Amino acid sequence: MRFAMFEVEGRRGLAAEHDGSFHGMFADNESYPGELGTLIATGADLSAVAKLLEGGPAVNLAHARLLPPLSHPRKIICVGLNYRAHSSEAGFEEQTYPTVFARFATSLIGHGDPIQMPVRSSQLDYEGELVAVIGKPGYNIGKEAALDHVAGYSIFNDATLRDYQFRTPQWTMGKNFDGTGALGPYFVPANELAPGCRGLRIQTRLNGKVMQNASISDMIFDVQMLVSLLSEVFTLEAGDLIVTGTPAGGMARKPQLWMRPGDVCEVEIDKLGVLRNTVAAPR
Amino acid sequence: MRFAMFEVEGRRGLAAEHDGSFHGMFADNESYPGELGTLIATGADLSAVAKLLEGGPAVNLAHARLLPPLSHPRKIICVGLNYRAHSSEAGFEEQTYPTVFARFATSLIGHGDPIQMPVRSSQLDYEGELVAVIGKPGYNIGKEAALDHVAGYSIFNDATLRDYQFRTPQWTMGKNFDGTGALGPYFVPANELAPGCRGLRIQTRLNGKVMQNASISDMIFDVQMLVSLLSEVFTLEAGDLIVTGTPAGGMARKPQLWMRPGDVCEVEIDKLGVLRNTVAAPR
Repeated sequence: MRFAMFEVEGRRGLAAEHDGSFHGMFADNESYPGELGTLIATGADLSAVAKLLEGGPAVNLAHARLLPPLSHPRKIICVGLNYRAHSSEAGFEEQTYPTVFARFATSLIGHGDPIQMPVRSSQLDYEGELVAVIGKPGYNIGKEAALDHVAGYSIFNDATLRDYQFRTPQWTMGKNFDGTGALGPYFVPANELAPGCRGLRIQTRLNGKVMQNASISDMIFDVQMLVSLLSEVFTLEAGDLIVTGTPAGGMARKPQLWMRPGDVCEVEIDKLGVLRNTVAAPR
Repeated sequence: MRFAMFEVEGRRGLAAEHDGSFHGMFADNESYPGELGTLIATGADLSAVAKLLEGGPAVNLAHARLLPPLSHPRKIICVGLNYRAHSSEAGFEEQTYPTVFARFATSLIGHGDPIQMPVRSSQLDYEGELVAVIGKPGYNIGKEAALDHVAGYSIFNDATLRDYQFRTPQWTMGKNFDGTGALGPYFVPANELAPGCRGLRIQTRLNGKVMQNASISDMIFDVQMLVSLLSEVFTLEAGDLIVTGTPAGGMARKPQLWMRPGDVCEVEIDKLGVLRNTVAAPR
């Protein structure tokens, strides 16, 4: 069961996969169950929603614009240096506590949208990542209960302007250019997947060439641990995104390699799909 | 003209100052103009709103709970090391570009609310700061037009858990404990103040003792420059908060001094008022 938020000729809709094809409804349909973000926030029964959408017409997503499954999360919590090999290639010591920075929702784009190369920097790099989406809110969540707070998963390309990232002690600016945070294509409920997505393979390809290739199990802090540790500091709210960090094979390449206009970047995670975006020239 | 969002017995309201006293309306009044965040987002004429509120009953704010003037900003953009003396006392070189980190809205509290000392850390420190609130949205805003995008100003106490701040290369966790970001007491429209609040004095007092004392003019990147530089990276949206950084006199004190339960911390900025919060024991 995978869900997609989409848009055709300015009309938004929600679709669910059934037997390999998507069926859905537009927001102006009186039976429309609501945006995915709202359904997650209200704790809706997603199996029932999928069943309802099956009754709608087939949707050819190839002819639709895919939207980020959640377009206005309250928090986009990004974890850095969370795969041993990446932390080491980046010149950092192995982390004993999660390194956390934030993205703003203004940076979000969907599957198929262009990754916008800015006018002011050409040091544009990819970072393929698993996203956990919070369902049930909570504060100070123990490890045992942590995965009960995750509604589902998606894929992120945390595209980064490296010069801006390292221009000051904090990475925020290099991580927040408009049009650089790709999310999608689908949202997959947690109960369809292994706990914390353990064992799933994550792969990033640039123009078809494999650049990152790892197992989700290689994370230093897995999803369960992240939910627990983050919630010791702040309340996790429904729809919050935890962007769980990128494997090796990115920024530390020698020679250094930046994405260029026209490049196609794909991030694939088993069972979650392929998030594909093309880099657009500065404008 | 100063505005306050308040709550009495669970009823929310908006009040404006007139001749030294506040008059206001509750949200269930049919003439209620709306929450301050909504008014700013819709570009409402705040003078007209103040005029309307004058017709409402007097509100004794001493008997009300003051709410953060904006409770759910989409972005809380915090600037670090933005006063020369503070940057130097903290051991950083003078910044040539703004150091930016983010707070989440889950950390916000209002004037008079307790600053919550967490269970896991006692290294709780104050940081008095000026907040600029974005009115007109924009991307890539030139310096000349930058202040036209600021709707008004408020005061922030960016209370920080220093051990969590420096536990990893990114400060996010130490800056985001629930109940540590005090905002208020008032929102003051920009047209009531000097451009960018230049020349106003900012002072932080702990139990009445002056700990920070500086002029807003001592900022390395003033409000005008911050709006312009931030908007080169991301779109500024109505209601976004730019928390502009803290002067010297905080973290680098020798001997080191942390806030303790029962301490009263006040941040005062000329014309903006006094933001007062008491530290609450861990719970």
